[in-house]
Amino acid sequence: MSPPVTAHAAWLPPEAFRPLGSRRVLVHGAGGLVDTVFDEVARACAAYGGRARRSGDPAGDPVAGGAGAGPADAAVDLVLALRGTGHLPAPAARAARVDGAPGDEGFLLTMSGGVPVVLADAPAGLLYGLFHLVRLGESAFDAALPTRWHRPAMPLRMLDHWDNVDVHPVMGQVERGYAGGSIFWRAGAARRDLARLRDYARLLAASGVNAISVNNVNVHGTEARLLTDRLGDVAEIADVLRPYGIRVHLAVTFAAPVVLGGLPTADPLDERVRGWWAAVTRQVYARIPDFGGYLVKADSEGQPGPFSYGRSHADGANLLADALAPHGGLVHWRAFVYNHHQDWRDRSTDRARAAHDHFAPLDGRFRDNVVLQVKSGPIDFQAREPVSPVLAAMPATRLAVEFQVTQEYTGQQRHVCYLGPAWSEVLRFAPWGPGRRTVADVAAGEPGAPGGGLVAVANVGDDPFWTGHPLAQANLYAFGRLAWDPELDPLAILDEWISLTFPPTTTGDPELVHETLHAMMDDSWRGYERYTAPLGVGFMVRPGDHYGPDVDGYEYSRWGTYHFADRDGVGVDRTRATGTGFTGQYPPPWSAVYESAHRCPDELLLFFHHVPYRHVLRSGSTVIQHIYDTHFAGVEQVRAMRDRWRLLDGLIDGAVHGRVTERLDEQVRSATEWRDQINTYFFRKSGIPDERRRRIY
Amino acid sequence: MSPPVTAHAAWLPPEAFRPLGSRRVLVHGAGGLVDTVFDEVARACAAYGGRARRSGDPAGDPVAGGAGAGPADAAVDLVLALRGTGHLPAPAARAARVDGAPGDEGFLLTMSGGVPVVLADAPAGLLYGLFHLVRLGESAFDAALPTRWHRPAMPLRMLDHWDNVDVHPVMGQVERGYAGGSIFWRAGAARRDLARLRDYARLLAASGVNAISVNNVNVHGTEARLLTDRLGDVAEIADVLRPYGIRVHLAVTFAAPVVLGGLPTADPLDERVRGWWAAVTRQVYARIPDFGGYLVKADSEGQPGPFSYGRSHADGANLLADALAPHGGLVHWRAFVYNHHQDWRDRSTDRARAAHDHFAPLDGRFRDNVVLQVKSGPIDFQAREPVSPVLAAMPATRLAVEFQVTQEYTGQQRHVCYLGPAWSEVLRFAPWGPGRRTVADVAAGEPGAPGGGLVAVANVGDDPFWTGHPLAQANLYAFGRLAWDPELDPLAILDEWISLTFPPTTTGDPELVHETLHAMMDDSWRGYERYTAPLGVGFMVRPGDHYGPDVDGYEYSRWGTYHFADRDGVGVDRTRATGTGFTGQYPPPWSAVYESAHRCPDELLLFFHHVPYRHVLRSGSTVIQHIYDTHFAGVEQVRAMRDRWRLLDGLIDGAVHGRVTERLDEQVRSATEWRDQINTYFFRKSGIPDERRRRIY
Repeated sequence: MSPPVTAHAAWLPPEAFRPLGSRRVLVHGAGGLVDTVFDEVARACAAYGGRARRSGDPAGDPVAGGAGAGPADAAVDLVLALRGTGHLPAPAARAARVDGAPGDEGFLLTMSGGVPVVLADAPAGLLYGLFHLVRLGESAFDAALPTRWHRPAMPLRMLDHWDNVDVHPVMGQVERGYAGGSIFWRAGAARRDLARLRDYARLLAASGVNAISVNNVNVHGTEARLLTDRLGDVAEIADVLRPYGIRVHLAVTFAAPVVLGGLPTADPLDERVRGWWAAVTRQVYARIPDFGGYLVKADSEGQPGPFSYGRSHADGANLLADALAPHGGLVHWRAFVYNHHQDWRDRSTDRARAAHDHFAPLDGRFRDNVVLQVKSGPIDFQAREPVSPVLAAMPATRLAVEFQVTQEYTGQQRHVCYLGPAWSEVLRFAPWGPGRRTVADVAAGEPGAPGGGLVAVANVGDDPFWTGHPLAQANLYAFGRLAWDPELDPLAILDEWISLTFPPTTTGDPELVHETLHAMMDDSWRGYERYTAPLGVGFMVRPGDHYGPDVDGYEYSRWGTYHFADRDGVGVDRTRATGTGFTGQYPPPWSAVYESAHRCPDELLLFFHHVPYRHVLRSGSTVIQHIYDTHFAGVEQVRAMRDRWRLLDGLIDGAVHGRVTERLDEQVRSATEWRDQINTYFFRKSGIPDERRRRIY
Repeated sequence: MSPPVTAHAAWLPPEAFRPLGSRRVLVHGAGGLVDTVFDEVARACAAYGGRARRSGDPAGDPVAGGAGAGPADAAVDLVLALRGTGHLPAPAARAARVDGAPGDEGFLLTMSGGVPVVLADAPAGLLYGLFHLVRLGESAFDAALPTRWHRPAMPLRMLDHWDNVDVHPVMGQVERGYAGGSIFWRAGAARRDLARLRDYARLLAASGVNAISVNNVNVHGTEARLLTDRLGDVAEIADVLRPYGIRVHLAVTFAAPVVLGGLPTADPLDERVRGWWAAVTRQVYARIPDFGGYLVKADSEGQPGPFSYGRSHADGANLLADALAPHGGLVHWRAFVYNHHQDWRDRSTDRARAAHDHFAPLDGRFRDNVVLQVKSGPIDFQAREPVSPVLAAMPATRLAVEFQVTQEYTGQQRHVCYLGPAWSEVLRFAPWGPGRRTVADVAAGEPGAPGGGLVAVANVGDDPFWTGHPLAQANLYAFGRLAWDPELDPLAILDEWISLTFPPTTTGDPELVHETLHAMMDDSWRGYERYTAPLGVGFMVRPGDHYGPDVDGYEYSRWGTYHFADRDGVGVDRTRATGTGFTGQYPPPWSAVYESAHRCPDELLLFFHHVPYRHVLRSGSTVIQHIYDTHFAGVEQVRAMRDRWRLLDGLIDGAVHGRVTERLDEQVRSATEWRDQINTYFFRKSGIPDERRRRIY
């Protein structure tokens, strides 16, 4: 065991609680999450000289049981109140007259008699209201504070941890983890570092996340047993997360009835199998009454699934859904199913088509408590992909959009790459054309037909900064915020994150610090895109670890990830006219836009088309010149980023500055390597010199 | 522990001893190795009805002490006699009049009074004579048997095992091992499977090998300690090898004085360091009096070395040589030193130059008991390389040529690739021009200036067939035989190996079996060359495991292994005129031959020159058409090989047939993959179609 490490405060430094903690705060209501709210308030007040009081808690508060208006009102600067637990304090009672309903997790924020009031109908709403106040800071106490109902757009805001219990010989403790070990598991055992876990839950709640799955979707031997004899480990985690409104989910293996239950089959239509899942699930809920449900990667990259029994993925998902339904649990069923033993010589198979080919025909066949979890793009979390057509193809299915917060293909938390703008683009994408429903709408669902919300692969580990690269915290934060409200401007979220994480009162030259961070990060995703794989081509990474360039690394492999660059041109022809027909999986207008090499957006051109190097982009540049220009520009951008960062030396926390400095050096090195390999590769192939005669090796 | 496995008999099946074992054999002489000879004879006679007798052993033989001629003579069909131990039996005494001297390991074979006689001056000679008789079979008893002195051309015929004691997390139990685990070590401990080890020693002696190093040249923590507190393990191995005339060597880390001795330095000129090595070496010899010496990989691929102390490799090697000299030990010092952190953008550095650049200036500065171990080619055991120029550059240094029997870059014992012809080409190469000294001459040395002999990286493991692929046994056999006599025809060695391993009396249709094996194997190395990397270009393998094609896999890496293929041409310009100047490391005539793209042998063209795809080879074909033609032909060759092999089903041992069948399937698959990737890669780059319009993907 290594010594305990005090983890970085991330977006909840004590200083962020000063505005609240220096005031007289009344918390009204009863129940676990109200206790959490009160504890937060009390801690803040203890630190910054305010005063925390409670009412409405029959269990022990002297004010409980009808104190109502009176001396309490006079002494209060802020009220957080839960309706339905005793008489509301006066400001809250007045606020309660505002029309509307917050739902399970929402809250009203209003100024009532000069006092800001957070009013909720359920404890979770009060908690989210509290963290909203923290984000607002002093402006929460502005007399002009607008009255507004806050409700999450998405009912499900979930993180998937790809954490292994045992250290996997190839993938390690955390598959695709770039932030040290797992916060849950170490070398085969639960870590039981409950303080750290509680800090994590608190950060997640403050970002808006309300569910996490605690083990890798590739479920190996030990991990499978979390469902049965190691369930106690999961229950322990659930106990820590519960006070922050976070439910625990578990990734399970479809073969569990065989590997754990000793049955001869895992056939979803076999009664013994159905009985086994029902019984096991009952035991789970007996131990964890608010258990969230199961997450399944089936028939994918070697994981078992219903195909083994000649059954459909609807059969498979519904099996688990039926076991979970009596308890209110959900199945998250991943749509990431494709042939990972493809022959590069076979041009008829297109991995991009796979999820749609497999799942679209199953629309309407899934139970109501099945969430089909669809990766945001058709391939695999590349820096740039089109939006998955599955998201527009299954109106009668509850769809979740899956993002990857862990930066597997976007610099692995060694590169600054703020992904908020990328996710925002996906969420704002309107598959049926401008002005119609967006991907966010699909994930949010409609009244009576809730969506599957957002899911993301987590990026934290036991690293002192949580995320390896301190600035990668912003991705986790932005994911939660976008899941709560996908219409937020990702750059506004960035500002929010900067203000919380680097409170102006704790830095030298607060304006410079804020501006610098913003300038480094706001365009960093497009910067990463510039110096890596151009025009949506993807997968030019080193096989295995996926870090650094290897243009042909996946070109002749079984993974279905090709670019087909030759001496004349580059890109994958996915048109209906001459290619794999993938463009036909989109509804109009995109089916037509993507089909046309001239209408297709530049940044996706090579995803959809194989074009000559001298093809003229919509930008006016040629493909080859675009490759050169963006790669030179990308490196310049990273160098400028590093130069900017140097200015902050001494102005912010030294440990953060040191860690980021070290990573920026690596980012400059790596970006330069990307630039040179990509430029050389395409110069060698095309023979076309850079118009500006810059150095290509 | 897995259950004991009976290992395959390889080239010493019982049947090979029938001619000898069915006769009356007299063994004359005393001493350990004579006991070995007698035991071999006695076992053969017990099996095949002959009679084994001894004389000349004062310890216990009734015939000892002057029996001389007499009844013994009449009853003898074969005599193996050591001079100098009592009166020789009559046929041997007559034979002893033949002029000449066999030296320490040689022997005379002659027909004396109708009886074949093996006569030796030292016990090892008698042992080699015995195995020579086994090779000859019935023809040893032919009245026309010519009288001939047999002496090894090379004093040192050594195998290096890259076996780890601990399982290395990346490299496993045996680095670059393709035949299961180590025969010496398992999971951190000595295996102590002495029966298996004895079988191995016997096979080696029968091939001519007389030295082995028992641990990986990359010396990790546990392995370092074989020199000190784990020396007992080495002594135990030495005890098993000794009766077969094989000395044990040990790979040591140059940092041993620091990591084992606790000294602050390993500086070769530091007196404490010199004292430490002297003392440790004394202890080694106290335990293993016939210990062979140390093998060192220094300043290479991360191993420590004298460069850390600003000392030369002569200083480093001489340090160990001085410690070993009092005991008659040798240092094998590897010349495999190069910059393995090269930047692909730097065209001025050429890995091919490195060994010569580092070592040639040190000629004459090494002690007499230093053997500089030089890889046969300038890079790293590729299917085709020129001969290392170091072998012609250090007349005042004792040079060994290092081959790789383990098929790291030649199919990893999944492909049939008989390497005898490749090694023979190297050994027959005359660096100073036709008719002058050959590489074999350099390795053999001259009277008064012994050479360093041949060394090879071993290919055996605990696989039941020793080498994974049963036919890969031929490589081990051929190495030993070529080390004994580099003038042997490698195809004659192949025949010898086939006859021994598949004795005609044990197979159905012996002629078909022999012909088939010969036809499959004789040209298999060139076949491998055909379907893999063309024209000497090298290193188009998958990084890390080095199996299968990845044309650009090492193109942008730090290992100095480039081909520079672009849309116009391919190859490395190593000329003096316009390239790295590597050609200048050769003496005339090769310096001029290699410098000229028109005189350079086709098979090395791309090693020395960057040429256009339409460059016309000496063969009359263009480079690009040669690439296509050889790749199609190579696959056809492998398919034909598999077809031939099918004919042997039922005619030879089923286990051997089954294993080879399985590997041939993989070879066909892999060769096809090579063909298609290489052809597609170069078609995409060159745009030049195959003249014969065969399918290129």
